[in-house]
Amino acid sequence: MTVQALDSIHELAQQLRVDSIRCSTSAGSGHPTSSMSAADLMAVLMARHLRYDWQQPDNPANDHLIFSKGHASPLLYSMFKAAGVVSDDDLINRYRRFGSVLEGHPTPVLPWVDVATGSLGQGLPDGVGVALAGRYLDELPYHVWVLCGDSEMAEGSMWEAFDKASYYQLSNLTAIVDVNRLGQRGPTELGWDLESYVRRVEGFGCHAIPIDGHDLGEIDKALGHAADADRPTVILARTRKGRGFSEVEDREDWHGKPLPPEMAERAIVELGGERHVTVSGPQPEPGTPKQRPVGEVSLPRYELGGKVPTRLAFGQALAAIGARPDVVALDGEVGNSTHAEEFLKKYPERYFEMFIAEQQLVAAAVGMSVRGYVPFAATFAAFFSRAYDFIRMSAISQANIRLSGSHAGVEIGADGPSQMALEDLAMMRAVEGSTVLYPSDATSAAALVQEMAERTGVVYMRTTRGAYPVLYGPDEAFPVGGAKVVRSSPDDQVTLIGAGVTLHNCLAAADRLASEGIQARVVDLYSVKPVDTRTLLEAAAATGDRLVVVEDHYPAGGIGGAVLEALSDAGHPVLISHLAVRSLPGSGTPAELMQAAGISVDHVVEAARQRVGA
Amino acid sequence: MTVQALDSIHELAQQLRVDSIRCSTSAGSGHPTSSMSAADLMAVLMARHLRYDWQQPDNPANDHLIFSKGHASPLLYSMFKAAGVVSDDDLINRYRRFGSVLEGHPTPVLPWVDVATGSLGQGLPDGVGVALAGRYLDELPYHVWVLCGDSEMAEGSMWEAFDKASYYQLSNLTAIVDVNRLGQRGPTELGWDLESYVRRVEGFGCHAIPIDGHDLGEIDKALGHAADADRPTVILARTRKGRGFSEVEDREDWHGKPLPPEMAERAIVELGGERHVTVSGPQPEPGTPKQRPVGEVSLPRYELGGKVPTRLAFGQALAAIGARPDVVALDGEVGNSTHAEEFLKKYPERYFEMFIAEQQLVAAAVGMSVRGYVPFAATFAAFFSRAYDFIRMSAISQANIRLSGSHAGVEIGADGPSQMALEDLAMMRAVEGSTVLYPSDATSAAALVQEMAERTGVVYMRTTRGAYPVLYGPDEAFPVGGAKVVRSSPDDQVTLIGAGVTLHNCLAAADRLASEGIQARVVDLYSVKPVDTRTLLEAAAATGDRLVVVEDHYPAGGIGGAVLEALSDAGHPVLISHLAVRSLPGSGTPAELMQAAGISVDHVVEAARQRVGA
Repeated sequence: MTVQALDSIHELAQQLRVDSIRCSTSAGSGHPTSSMSAADLMAVLMARHLRYDWQQPDNPANDHLIFSKGHASPLLYSMFKAAGVVSDDDLINRYRRFGSVLEGHPTPVLPWVDVATGSLGQGLPDGVGVALAGRYLDELPYHVWVLCGDSEMAEGSMWEAFDKASYYQLSNLTAIVDVNRLGQRGPTELGWDLESYVRRVEGFGCHAIPIDGHDLGEIDKALGHAADADRPTVILARTRKGRGFSEVEDREDWHGKPLPPEMAERAIVELGGERHVTVSGPQPEPGTPKQRPVGEVSLPRYELGGKVPTRLAFGQALAAIGARPDVVALDGEVGNSTHAEEFLKKYPERYFEMFIAEQQLVAAAVGMSVRGYVPFAATFAAFFSRAYDFIRMSAISQANIRLSGSHAGVEIGADGPSQMALEDLAMMRAVEGSTVLYPSDATSAAALVQEMAERTGVVYMRTTRGAYPVLYGPDEAFPVGGAKVVRSSPDDQVTLIGAGVTLHNCLAAADRLASEGIQARVVDLYSVKPVDTRTLLEAAAATGDRLVVVEDHYPAGGIGGAVLEALSDAGHPVLISHLAVRSLPGSGTPAELMQAAGISVDHVVEAARQRVGA
Repeated sequence: MTVQALDSIHELAQQLRVDSIRCSTSAGSGHPTSSMSAADLMAVLMARHLRYDWQQPDNPANDHLIFSKGHASPLLYSMFKAAGVVSDDDLINRYRRFGSVLEGHPTPVLPWVDVATGSLGQGLPDGVGVALAGRYLDELPYHVWVLCGDSEMAEGSMWEAFDKASYYQLSNLTAIVDVNRLGQRGPTELGWDLESYVRRVEGFGCHAIPIDGHDLGEIDKALGHAADADRPTVILARTRKGRGFSEVEDREDWHGKPLPPEMAERAIVELGGERHVTVSGPQPEPGTPKQRPVGEVSLPRYELGGKVPTRLAFGQALAAIGARPDVVALDGEVGNSTHAEEFLKKYPERYFEMFIAEQQLVAAAVGMSVRGYVPFAATFAAFFSRAYDFIRMSAISQANIRLSGSHAGVEIGADGPSQMALEDLAMMRAVEGSTVLYPSDATSAAALVQEMAERTGVVYMRTTRGAYPVLYGPDEAFPVGGAKVVRSSPDDQVTLIGAGVTLHNCLAAADRLASEGIQARVVDLYSVKPVDTRTLLEAAAATGDRLVVVEDHYPAGGIGGAVLEALSDAGHPVLISHLAVRSLPGSGTPAELMQAAGISVDHVVEAARQRVGA
């Protein structure tokens, strides 16, 4: 690195600081001091190491840059200005404004942003996903650079990421930790104790490089090492928050606060004034992702009446759609329970074992979605609650991820409530733009797996532990947003609505009711979100608004909520008899637990009788 | 340790193995091999180190024993038999049976169990909470022993726990990691690489002791060291899964599987047959928790019309009820945003900074609840999604925790969607036995903080970032499960239902509607769960079933869902005009974002007009 280069990079760094101040002061909010600490790091990175074609952000050979400390958006957007892709006017006058793509925290509404960040501890796990794709799927030499904050090193998810980065030997991943020692409301746990960070990071199998984060030469050397490393690298950069402006540098109580205009003026003077340097850093070597042969998808076919768990059908269908080379499977070390291992058997090179680390499981799927893959992540449905913040953020990231949760509800039996998903439908329905599926038989489960692959956003499927009869012939279609009327007659008096195991209870109840002379329509609500309002309205109309909804889920926000919300939205509010799990379950057989929860065949029969006044 | 003692402890360990096999074979499910690997560890612990009065589990001086690897319940319950508190008959014939307290995974329906486990990576963080209480609140010398699995070392939450244990110098905490190298479906990431575990654990500031987990002498020595350590200790015990029965020992594919009866017979023979030893280990030294003076709670009083953010009222009320010495506050390093720091200013000795580690934040609250404290944990509402699995499990633990989430909804403005809680009401409502509160003004927020302290289970309060007028006089009561009719007349034509910021929009809308000659009733639904069905029914009756519900939350499962579910349950289904956030928001001012989301005053007015046909 020549002195000349050093000088110009210093100028760039000062510009990034000045612009971070200017845009946040203009917006009246934002995090200039958290940007200023990392400005030297990012200046060297973009000028000399980040191989990125700014004019073609979709160039598949580009490096990736993720701001895990998303609150440093002033710095990121100032880099975009320096790259010549955001105007100074937009930076200063549109940052954090309504309708602007320059949001308070970065999101992929910007073409140079891979994932939304701002919930700390997520950018690095997402970066692990991108790096996994680079090394094992794309087989391209792009490098993934993640700027991390020191505060977020307290998040367990960071350590899930370091662990998996090392396990999968992601030498194409570099975390740059901006150790400015100050969090939002005071000093961080470890302050400037780089030695402790080094011990932790090395303990997790990554290569740690402690540096002075304001020494451009040291930064350059560390980034050069990182690019050529044989292990994931973690650069631990000792920095000063608010670096470059003496009135705030290394001072508490300046987190997340723009400088008042008169202070900003003094700061800009101290930093050497406004500049409008543009940088053209290194370009990626041309390259395209590895192409794999496209096979023919042939879904498994199940015999009517045969007993097959939907979780097994999920696994078998996943293996079948693996003929598409963009389909990838990940599991949280329970692949023999979720049956994701069916995919492993067929496509081991596209199966990623994430062990018991559900946050990283989901984040890896998000990172693979960034690279255009079609990831399916599986674990017990209950354990997706571990990754709910990641699922929520993945919607903001506009990621396309498919989640399959097995072992839903009290139906799982003896393992008890810790393993029972009883909140998952509410949790997943609440996510923006999500799809929530809950098949009742193997045929529909398999068909819906194929639908999932085509769907955008967060797409969730709930599967059941036990084996239940196949209800549908192999050529039946199950569009997302549909429902099946499994049983009906012109004389239906009441509609029984179920999904998953409770649909089988509804069918048995309908048989019993028929023997008593009560005709019941039965609806399979396999698409919980979006829900088939038309089928619900027709059923309500046909059966005098007598609806019974049965779900193996707590009562708030599940299938009952979905039905009530849909019918109210459609202008036809209906009273539902709502059978759901209303107290904490224990262990037992599935039958005992469904009986105790009030969602058994007996309960459906009784609810239906009451509704028809029998 | 005498040879005699060693011999008898070996007998105890063999009994624990035999009983683990017997009970799981009898139940037809369970995890005998995961129990057998840890039997030697637990035998030495209970015979020589665990100071526990089995006849008086509520003796406050007792040590605590937590099975973070909750699937080893056969081992735990076999220990209870050896302690003489569970009969052999119950162990063998009631394990995992319906209605039995010997559930598949341990829960506090058993008096010797502190917290529910079974979702991995939670027992240790919960144990950190208990140890924090021991050291800083109770000031009692009890020790917290946590049996961990090696698979769960992949969970980030474990590292949040080690980090906090070291930060808070919890020398009263010992993690005993059963490194049997086999997970559910194959080898763990690190196998028997104890050195890597040691590096990680030491890097996190804990004292690591690697041992042979089947050498009783080594175990005894390590446990002795741990009891006298000046730092948290982590015993890394190399063990063999299924230890003691040659047909399964250290073999794959035996996770979570009971031995078939004929194999069980052979195993029992190999283990030396059934035994019915009882143990009386060391007793706790008598002691009682530190008593602190009880002060008078005097809630803050706010002037009608003054503008106060509810998050500030939360903090001020929390500081006020701090006069009760059992109240404790914890925060995720955002105490100046949540205003939990108001408590810190007054009671620093009962304030616990958990930094950016939301899982440990909630787990610490759970642990303090175990010790009878009244913990309030605060962070941004959005970030409680990070801890959803912990919140779900805390309901199974029958813990009493209070959570305060600030910065809800699009109202937060420029920071953008990553910081906006828009799923929290659905997520919290779904939890079994939960309470969900959402005050609109400072008076009600303060009153509800006091209500929260009295409440059991998971109690959540959502607070708002911005300052809005005080609506209620200081002597108004806000019972949980109530609602306030803020505005009404005999001529009301429509009811506007809001909470938090949207209540203010409803009030402004009512003014505007009144100027058009439309009388609107306004309901403050501050208690979202349980919801005040009677007030809703009365409003519906009074206003011709014309209800408008406005919420700063995604549409599925929030306030709209709560209203629809309540009215359907009450037998009076009603159509609601449902204004909610229906697409991904960006940055902007609160007013701009509420306008864009369709929840502004304009939208309420328009929805009301449509309902009355104006």
